[in-house]
Amino acid sequence: MFNIALLGAGRIGQVHAANIASHSATTLWSVVDPNQEFATRLASQYQARLQSLDEAMTDPNVHAVLIASATDTHADLIELAARHGKAIFCEKPVHLDLARVRDCLKVVKEYDVPLFIGFNRRFDPQFRRVKTDVLAGRIGKPESLLIISRDPSPPPAEYVRVSGGMFRDMTIHDFDMARFIMGEEPVSVYAQGSNLVDPAIGEAGDIDTAFIVLKYASGAMATIVNSRRSAYGYDQRLELHGSEGLLCAGNILENQVQHYGKTGCTSALPEHFFLQRYKSAYAAEWEHFVAVLRGEAVPDCSGDDGERALYLADKALESLHSQREVLL
Amino acid sequence: MFNIALLGAGRIGQVHAANIASHSATTLWSVVDPNQEFATRLASQYQARLQSLDEAMTDPNVHAVLIASATDTHADLIELAARHGKAIFCEKPVHLDLARVRDCLKVVKEYDVPLFIGFNRRFDPQFRRVKTDVLAGRIGKPESLLIISRDPSPPPAEYVRVSGGMFRDMTIHDFDMARFIMGEEPVSVYAQGSNLVDPAIGEAGDIDTAFIVLKYASGAMATIVNSRRSAYGYDQRLELHGSEGLLCAGNILENQVQHYGKTGCTSALPEHFFLQRYKSAYAAEWEHFVAVLRGEAVPDCSGDDGERALYLADKALESLHSQREVLL
Amino acid sequence: MFNIALLGAGRIGQVHAANIASHSATTLWSVVDPNQEFATRLASQYQARLQSLDEAMTDPNVHAVLIASATDTHADLIELAARHGKAIFCEKPVHLDLARVRDCLKVVKEYDVPLFIGFNRRFDPQFRRVKTDVLAGRIGKPESLLIISRDPSPPPAEYVRVSGGMFRDMTIHDFDMARFIMGEEPVSVYAQGSNLVDPAIGEAGDIDTAFIVLKYASGAMATIVNSRRSAYGYDQRLELHGSEGLLCAGNILENQVQHYGKTGCTSALPEHFFLQRYKSAYAAEWEHFVAVLRGEAVPDCSGDDGERALYLADKALESLHSQREVLL
Amino acid sequence: MFNIALLGAGRIGQVHAANIASHSATTLWSVVDPNQEFATRLASQYQARLQSLDEAMTDPNVHAVLIASATDTHADLIELAARHGKAIFCEKPVHLDLARVRDCLKVVKEYDVPLFIGFNRRFDPQFRRVKTDVLAGRIGKPESLLIISRDPSPPPAEYVRVSGGMFRDMTIHDFDMARFIMGEEPVSVYAQGSNLVDPAIGEAGDIDTAFIVLKYASGAMATIVNSRRSAYGYDQRLELHGSEGLLCAGNILENQVQHYGKTGCTSALPEHFFLQRYKSAYAAEWEHFVAVLRGEAVPDCSGDDGERALYLADKALESLHSQREVLL
Repeated sequence: MFNIALLGAGRIGQVHAANIASHSATTLWSVVDPNQEFATRLASQYQARLQSLDEAMTDPNVHAVLIASATDTHADLIELAARHGKAIFCEKPVHLDLARVRDCLKVVKEYDVPLFIGFNRRFDPQFRRVKTDVLAGRIGKPESLLIISRDPSPPPAEYVRVSGGMFRDMTIHDFDMARFIMGEEPVSVYAQGSNLVDPAIGEAGDIDTAFIVLKYASGAMATIVNSRRSAYGYDQRLELHGSEGLLCAGNILENQVQHYGKTGCTSALPEHFFLQRYKSAYAAEWEHFVAVLRGEAVPDCSGDDGERALYLADKALESLHSQREVLL
Repeated sequence: MFNIALLGAGRIGQVHAANIASHSATTLWSVVDPNQEFATRLASQYQARLQSLDEAMTDPNVHAVLIASATDTHADLIELAARHGKAIFCEKPVHLDLARVRDCLKVVKEYDVPLFIGFNRRFDPQFRRVKTDVLAGRIGKPESLLIISRDPSPPPAEYVRVSGGMFRDMTIHDFDMARFIMGEEPVSVYAQGSNLVDPAIGEAGDIDTAFIVLKYASGAMATIVNSRRSAYGYDQRLELHGSEGLLCAGNILENQVQHYGKTGCTSALPEHFFLQRYKSAYAAEWEHFVAVLRGEAVPDCSGDDGERALYLADKALESLHSQREVLL
Repeated sequence: MFNIALLGAGRIGQVHAANIASHSATTLWSVVDPNQEFATRLASQYQARLQSLDEAMTDPNVHAVLIASATDTHADLIELAARHGKAIFCEKPVHLDLARVRDCLKVVKEYDVPLFIGFNRRFDPQFRRVKTDVLAGRIGKPESLLIISRDPSPPPAEYVRVSGGMFRDMTIHDFDMARFIMGEEPVSVYAQGSNLVDPAIGEAGDIDTAFIVLKYASGAMATIVNSRRSAYGYDQRLELHGSEGLLCAGNILENQVQHYGKTGCTSALPEHFFLQRYKSAYAAEWEHFVAVLRGEAVPDCSGDDGERALYLADKALESLHSQREVLL
Repeated sequence: MFNIALLGAGRIGQVHAANIASHSATTLWSVVDPNQEFATRLASQYQARLQSLDEAMTDPNVHAVLIASATDTHADLIELAARHGKAIFCEKPVHLDLARVRDCLKVVKEYDVPLFIGFNRRFDPQFRRVKTDVLAGRIGKPESLLIISRDPSPPPAEYVRVSGGMFRDMTIHDFDMARFIMGEEPVSVYAQGSNLVDPAIGEAGDIDTAFIVLKYASGAMATIVNSRRSAYGYDQRLELHGSEGLLCAGNILENQVQHYGKTGCTSALPEHFFLQRYKSAYAAEWEHFVAVLRGEAVPDCSGDDGERALYLADKALESLHSQREVLL
């Protein structure tokens, strides 16, 4: 049984708490959060203890930490946990500043603890199936990848201001997905973007709609289509065209019932947002982390993966501003 | 070039006129209809002549007749055309009375002219594809057939009164389809029905909603689901389950554009009614009749097929009234 | 916390054990099974104790029993549990003999304990959604229901011999589903059947392919299409046509990835069998039973429902043998 | 009745000949082609006459010409026809050289004859439906357009060498489609491309796989995904995301029959290539041209549209070579 200290009792921390508690090999040992109300509620729900950060770090019963706190605390917490020899599961991103990420990863390397970065979509059964099918040769050689990723509604401008911008906050998932599916590093990136959804986002210096083109050394290409808003809910699709066929992973709908009436045949909406759409992905990534804790696996998604996705976000931003393709 | 006299210038006659005129091997020679307005309009549209029934029958230039007149005139016109040695394309049914059908077919046999009965759905590319796939062994041995057939809206009660009833008027198409797909004759029939759509239909002594079960000597079975009304338009589907798989022919939609919005993903309605849904079937059955005229084919759908479908309708009615399975 | 004694540690018992154990309000208190190997394995997996039937019944810590043992023991165990005042969750059916069912239900009534019969499909989110949509008036007045239910492969002939026959063993789920969706009792039943899948089933005196037609007092009708085998896996579909539209609940696929290649576009197979297809239904019915234990609900699916579905199965068999519609 | 001289009796000329001949307002008056075998065969099929180019131009019975000859003859033939006062239907493109196009259009303007450029896809019922739905406000303000266009197999390298390159030969259709759907001119273009399909295409100095990004003054964007090869046939899709929804026009399949078997559910392939896929578009564009001949409409797709699409192709090529966004 592995005891886990959960750092952060907010929305995403609650998702992880449920997975930790229901897994037969892990226990939610303690909850750490400066917001005492959140921490207390979550701890009592799972009969876990409340700990301060110091207590958790120095508690020899704690085998691993799950970092689900505010983004700007991730790098510090990773370093702290590494110094205390804890295995680390950290929500993406490591940090919004690439130099800070690199320093942090040096510390992790020095203390030689496992670090898993939670790019949850890699564990979505649909996208993973695409990956498996590609590796099995079902579509020959990959040639062009299309990722469509739209949020149901835009974040508030205050969040946008501290988010690092759309590419570092939202598109970073798609950069990681492109890396996961293609299995090779891009050699160039081009980005085009607009502020169409909410003027407040433009005033905060950000965009809310984007197209990104990645080119690979093999000649393969990828396009990412992003929007901060979609009238029909969370739009999460992917298709990969290869020399011998095409694989498409469409949206997962809220239910499979179709209604035929005067206006046509209507299906359900896609699962509303990431908590619903990626429910099984969150459970699967925890299953994977347990395998890491057991020494049966190394992190499928490491600090280096976190760094690389952020690097692509940075370069995409450079392309957006320079109006040219940026070589990597 | 084969010259065709069209007997009947109503709705279905107009469909056939267009196919006759646009086929490179046939000419719409003349139009015969007691309704002079209809006849004149159609004849002038295709530069055809107006003829009386006598003129058409005795005109040596007329190679074939297409009977698209009122149902109760079919048998008489078939006999008349047969006696004049014309090849015959007749809209279903031959007659609503089985004895009359049999007498009529004897005359056709005596004069040895080709007679094609227009069960148009046999020529629908979708249903024909199912048939072809079955014959090619794609689903092994056929075991259970499901035919769903719903009209967009009920006919007026006056029509119902002279229609011969739902089974002889509407279900007859489905009986023929079952015979076409299964390729064997049923050994029993059971029918259940209700008057749910329009009370006037019930008052006219008819039903508007029905389930029919056919059993075959091989042990295979078929079910027909009928309604005189469907809120989403003409519902024409068929699925055949076999020992090694299932074939499904769904509705043909008015267009392929999907709209995603606040209420889900909405597709177009099915093609509205038989003139739209079976447009290509009407053209294909005419193509087939041209092959018959050329002596390259015998009618795919003969007078015997017409008789047999009517027989099944009669027996279904007997089952409905007796509340028991009727052996054939 | 409610303590549950699980009677029966076989395949379906294991499904329930997992749901009992992972629910925050229930504990798998003990496992009872004459097969010591099965019982021990399951008990140790969930840190439950082994008990004899007597021990479980007399243990005041046991609040409820879950009966997942062989079919012919259900009625006896229900009576025993009722006499000991335990709440009862029993897998369908109560018994294969209608008289025995009625006697058993009298005992339950006498001791006034809650009895839930596990017609799991009522808790499937898709079928429940259809029910909800109907009640919300989305298709007007229900007119015709179509239930397609095919198992992936036939059971061994030895099982068939003790199963009570296809209608009591397999179709009983569909009879219950028809009752659940239509919300009214049928007034007549007609059944047609064949032995097409496995000759051994015929030799055991049973059929493996069936069509059943139910008629309701409202004039509405339902058809059940059954087969003991399907080349493409577990086929579980339902559609309900009403005066203002149609609701269709299709199969749930193993994944949502589509492959386009030389032979067309291929989707995944349906979830293989009931353990996969109805995974969420099993969890949802347990959630419901917890509400019953808490006194917040009465069983959605009672002993009377079990009796009624068996009655329909018996009458369908009578129809099959008499080749006529049977009035109810 | 309008008499049409068909210039060019090759594959696409044959498509137009059929539409001219079957339209009630047009006659295929004559066929002009230096290849006497092709010309004779087509003329005799439709009882048309053979004419030399001079004869056709000076024949006062000829009301219009349909130019379906080799690409490098289009501009000369357009000018010749304009000087003889004939109405002109010309297959795309006017010419591969933008300066030549502009000179040609000046001549057309001088002689003031109607010129229709055959961007057939504008008349595809699916894409037109998207346009109609957008104009009807079904998805609010257009924000991002995605056009997927893949040919079933690459052309021979000899053709590639004289084709003007992928952008001028193939993508030009997609540039026109983007203009048609968006209804505004792009302000920048970026192109990325590779030679992945056939090395001979690369040796001929061309690419066979491309991604193009267009930006509009409104902030809206469009992406074109191209490949010269697709294992599953002609891939012609389009989706447009707007502030209030999404419209998707998928592929048209060869038939609607689905097969369920051991490997899943398989649908038919898309219509094989442009002759099949855009059959109704060719008929609809001819219908439109007849309206132009009647003076009831001006060309929906003019010489200016031809020029503009070529301009975008040229600029995309410039972007591909300069690895930067090109402002328009």
